[in-house]
Amino acid sequence: MTKNTRPAPSARTRIRRIAEKANYETQMLYDIIDEAYVCNLAFNAGDSTHCIPTACWRDGHYLYIHGSNGSRMVKALLSGIQTSIAITHIDALVLAKSAFNHSMNYRSAVIYGTFEAVEGDEHKAAALDVFMDKIAAGRKHQARPGNAQELAATTVLRISLDEAAAKVSNKQAPEDNVEDLDLPVWAGLLPMKVTRGEPIAANNVAVSTPDYVRDWAE
Amino acid sequence: MTKNTRPAPSARTRIRRIAEKANYETQMLYDIIDEAYVCNLAFNAGDSTHCIPTACWRDGHYLYIHGSNGSRMVKALLSGIQTSIAITHIDALVLAKSAFNHSMNYRSAVIYGTFEAVEGDEHKAAALDVFMDKIAAGRKHQARPGNAQELAATTVLRISLDEAAAKVSNKQAPEDNVEDLDLPVWAGLLPMKVTRGEPIAANNVAVSTPDYVRDWAE
Repeated sequence: MTKNTRPAPSARTRIRRIAEKANYETQMLYDIIDEAYVCNLAFNAGDSTHCIPTACWRDGHYLYIHGSNGSRMVKALLSGIQTSIAITHIDALVLAKSAFNHSMNYRSAVIYGTFEAVEGDEHKAAALDVFMDKIAAGRKHQARPGNAQELAATTVLRISLDEAAAKVSNKQAPEDNVEDLDLPVWAGLLPMKVTRGEPIAANNVAVSTPDYVRDWAE
Repeated sequence: MTKNTRPAPSARTRIRRIAEKANYETQMLYDIIDEAYVCNLAFNAGDSTHCIPTACWRDGHYLYIHGSNGSRMVKALLSGIQTSIAITHIDALVLAKSAFNHSMNYRSAVIYGTFEAVEGDEHKAAALDVFMDKIAAGRKHQARPGNAQELAATTVLRISLDEAAAKVSNKQAPEDNVEDLDLPVWAGLLPMKVTRGEPIAANNVAVSTPDYVRDWAE
């Protein structure tokens, strides 16, 4: 785990609980976002607070999302409201000798700010190309690009990562109270991770298998 | 994918985008929650909208969370504000012949409502036992239970699942436009799932390995 080397970018991104887990390093933030296909987006609309999962990607110091022009989320975000976004990867359950000291290893990012629309077909197409590169490197040169009608139906939005914080727990062992250490209870880590399964080609495929498909499964 | 058999429980849980993916079945909702160790919780506090990941579990028709008494999130939720919660599992990237028709297979749940505190040490301990059972079946009889001080420091909250909706995309193949079907582009699914790794015992272990540890890895 990287040490903090710069202060929190704002009061609301200062980690209050278990402050030693705060990780303000930009690279950790980028890695957490780049490993995620979906983020969770909190916003207010129509007298309610909403939390909606949506696909995301990163380009430079911005997180991008997209949606249909008519969606409630897109319309709310275009109005300029403040939002918050969470992304979490769970790496292990951490089993301690006492119930109270159980925890998880995780890497999470929380982002605050306001989205802005990516304007112009050229900029929208370029942003969507970055998304395609995340899904499958090189595929942007293979799949049919969005036409004018498809681009026009899609809103692309981005939010600066200026006000964001990563929080990382990466315990090598549970942290038990001294008086619990001799209890006859198994303690340790139960790891988990996202793995990739064998690609499933569609029936209509009569083309060579691209590298990103051949190399997908682990 | 199960068909919808009852209407959405409220206007804000009616799925607006891609309505055929709406799945109001209770069992699907339960399964999505039971597979998750963390949920994403949206709430307003201190003039900001927040999206915070937090551990979760289910008992009956309620989703439970816990936290330190002093945390901003706990204090905000105890004030009775409306919240929204999202949980998402990604099952595959769905690669279509056109960029526009790319999608993902996923199972997601969105919950609306207001949390209530679980009051009384007995009820709190019982709720935390359900969490322990989710983490490792039977471990609640092995780990040292929370003592009075530990229970007092922990707030346990629950929210009814009455106003919740599941959304499922479970495509067996991408849905391409007819005019794109003959393009020489690989199309199909790139599956992914969460898998479990080999348990890592802590140094202080001199006890037999419980079933939930022996059976953890796949």
